[in-house]
Amino acid sequence: MKPSIPKGTRDFIPADARKREYIFSTIKKHFKSFGYQPIETPAMENLSTLTGKYGEEGDRLIFKILNSGDYLKKADKSALANEDSKSLISSISEKALRYDLTVPFARFVVQHQNELTFPFKRYQIQPVWRADRPQKGRYREFFQCDADVVGSESLWYEVELMLLFDRVLTDLKLPGFTIKINNRKVLSGLAELIGQPDKIVDFTVALDKLDKIGRDKVIEEMLAKGLDAASLEKAYPIFDLPADPESCLEKMRDLLKDSAIGLEGLKELEFVYTQAKLAGIKKADLALDFTLARGLDYYTGAIFEVKAHEVQIGSICGGGRYDDLTGVFGQKGLSGVGISFGADRIYDVLEALELFPKDTARQNDVLICYFEDEMAPNNFSLCTTLRDRGVSAVMYPENAKLKKQMKYANDNDIPFVVLAGDKEWSEGLIQLKNMETGEQTSHSKDDLILTIAKYCGK
Amino acid sequence: MKPSIPKGTRDFIPADARKREYIFSTIKKHFKSFGYQPIETPAMENLSTLTGKYGEEGDRLIFKILNSGDYLKKADKSALANEDSKSLISSISEKALRYDLTVPFARFVVQHQNELTFPFKRYQIQPVWRADRPQKGRYREFFQCDADVVGSESLWYEVELMLLFDRVLTDLKLPGFTIKINNRKVLSGLAELIGQPDKIVDFTVALDKLDKIGRDKVIEEMLAKGLDAASLEKAYPIFDLPADPESCLEKMRDLLKDSAIGLEGLKELEFVYTQAKLAGIKKADLALDFTLARGLDYYTGAIFEVKAHEVQIGSICGGGRYDDLTGVFGQKGLSGVGISFGADRIYDVLEALELFPKDTARQNDVLICYFEDEMAPNNFSLCTTLRDRGVSAVMYPENAKLKKQMKYANDNDIPFVVLAGDKEWSEGLIQLKNMETGEQTSHSKDDLILTIAKYCGK
Repeated sequence: MKPSIPKGTRDFIPADARKREYIFSTIKKHFKSFGYQPIETPAMENLSTLTGKYGEEGDRLIFKILNSGDYLKKADKSALANEDSKSLISSISEKALRYDLTVPFARFVVQHQNELTFPFKRYQIQPVWRADRPQKGRYREFFQCDADVVGSESLWYEVELMLLFDRVLTDLKLPGFTIKINNRKVLSGLAELIGQPDKIVDFTVALDKLDKIGRDKVIEEMLAKGLDAASLEKAYPIFDLPADPESCLEKMRDLLKDSAIGLEGLKELEFVYTQAKLAGIKKADLALDFTLARGLDYYTGAIFEVKAHEVQIGSICGGGRYDDLTGVFGQKGLSGVGISFGADRIYDVLEALELFPKDTARQNDVLICYFEDEMAPNNFSLCTTLRDRGVSAVMYPENAKLKKQMKYANDNDIPFVVLAGDKEWSEGLIQLKNMETGEQTSHSKDDLILTIAKYCGK
Repeated sequence: MKPSIPKGTRDFIPADARKREYIFSTIKKHFKSFGYQPIETPAMENLSTLTGKYGEEGDRLIFKILNSGDYLKKADKSALANEDSKSLISSISEKALRYDLTVPFARFVVQHQNELTFPFKRYQIQPVWRADRPQKGRYREFFQCDADVVGSESLWYEVELMLLFDRVLTDLKLPGFTIKINNRKVLSGLAELIGQPDKIVDFTVALDKLDKIGRDKVIEEMLAKGLDAASLEKAYPIFDLPADPESCLEKMRDLLKDSAIGLEGLKELEFVYTQAKLAGIKKADLALDFTLARGLDYYTGAIFEVKAHEVQIGSICGGGRYDDLTGVFGQKGLSGVGISFGADRIYDVLEALELFPKDTARQNDVLICYFEDEMAPNNFSLCTTLRDRGVSAVMYPENAKLKKQMKYANDNDIPFVVLAGDKEWSEGLIQLKNMETGEQTSHSKDDLILTIAKYCGK
């Protein structure tokens, strides 16, 4: 039996796991400094909690868990007789794997409302599962890294979340990235402008493709979707907006001057953009992008998307505001705004640009070689002292040829090797080999410990 | 619809999540300094990978995932017709949730053997799922924190793992705990001694209860299991072993003098015990315990168990050596030794003894109050500066009554509140309120930042 794992899932060997850990811990550090609080929800939710929240396609892609024990006993007999897979599900499966972190968060907020103080800021870094067809960059198990605040309509949270994007991606040393912002209300205003508010989705979905397919094809698609050509022309100015944000907003205000909702959206956008600039963006380019149209099913205000420069990979982060996060679980009127870091794509960007810090490749800081059995307790004790200082130290566990022990250090990118046998211990001078330079130096035990600890920043 | 989660699973609100994070990060810190490497395996394994590895009871308790799409199409028709839940499973479920971390680790080692260097030391901190009947302290989803080394028979790893128990639990400030060690070979020796090696399981399972039910009941149970009374008497000296480890080992060597395997076990035990003592145990009591009999189905050498003093809760950690970890996946002869920290029980112990550090209760370091809208950008910028120094800072997001804002700080255990409105900014003197002492002080902006950062150790 050749061992394998389900398609679309992944094992992470240490070199990869350390790189992932670097991304997660960087994100977590900033989530914390921005005041977001950790929560955890179970991998399994009641199937009824998830069903109907992600559209029909989503319902299909939720992994269902078979009930335990004699699960056919309570099965829907007619579905069983008709071999109707879909109808049978709810009678043989009560639980399912989390499909995203937003629905469990909404469920959590309602369930624990009396234990929380609002506005409630939470972060959550946990895996989700989707029965999607696996393909490059799309997995059936992947981590989401979400920060959301619920219970306030203050636009300062939009500003804060833009800074959070900036700080995390700057800290990860991304050489360049753009935070695109739009506002759902502006899109509604544009749909009003062309007199077809019911066509907002067709209109915005086509508009969203402007970057990729260009103005003519966008208009072509809109017409094909039944948008009226004459009315559509009123919106043409959006194809020729000035690059400068001030002038761009000015022109949009003029365009949407008769749409109350459109003007409100522009006012929000201007506030968020201006305050984010003012608060001090470190590395991000900020861009107003009136073609940005993600999450139209749920976003009601701000819409965010982050793209990395230099790597073609789609968006690496996203987010937005949803006015009624918890309504479906019975608590109306709680507005939320949140963002999500796409850890897998960020990983691919850092890998492509060789931006992972060198020490994520390093398995251990030091290998202590094994010579005579009689000296092993001395060597082990040295190993223990180094560990107590936080140095990642290993002792080769048995008497093997030195060549084999050195190969172990090499194979595992261990930068230091300690050579201490009978002779060294009796002379009180231990040999330290720097595996990068090949240089070998003699040290007293105390000096050796200090040297290694210092190198490792411990 | 009242929101809920599946029984036996848990949500963790921030106060609890921070405490869990404290335990996990402490464990992880020592895993790393001891040279163990992180790996991750998918939550879902192929059902065939897990089936048959945990006994019949285990097979029942594995959570199975229903195949996606029209899963009944490939269902076993006769099982379906007979409504035979058990026989149907393999035809409608290919995947299952991980039941422990050991079997996925063994699968991982075989699958990735060419990418690993042996001896391979890995740690893994991930959730596992069991369809057990939920009860106090037993959950259907819980985390395991495992460290294992595979590919070496060196007893130095046993020594190292005992030190790892000691360092983690000392760091978590446990006031007292005992690491019990035994060796499967000694148990085999005892079974030989009484001439009934085939009865080793009955013999050791009864012996394991000595602490709880006492000598007489243990013997009673052994006799009831069909052990021969006269032969059994030969083993009676184990009920009267001296407390001193040296004399105890001496007496055991005498008792098992005719059992080669028994003597080998004693030699291993003596080495591990002596070297661990020599290497410098910080807080743990070490105890040879010849009644310790966990994991008899797989452990072949050392057996470990850790108990906390002062709290009645069963063992908080365990572990042992298994000679043929990966054989079932086709790679013979790889010996492994590993330990597991019971994070949930450790949590309960720390909670019971009030050992969680005070700052795990703290949501944020500082709240910046909101006064006039015009001053909000100043306040937000102060917030950003503090965050950039690593301080967890939040700004109240809108103009609310000061009382409400102070309540927010109180409810969330935020130790500092910054009061900076029009007056304070124009005078250049910002008010800082220490919520613990009630003391309020005036600071220039720079001084304020330094004061807060210093208090938070940033």
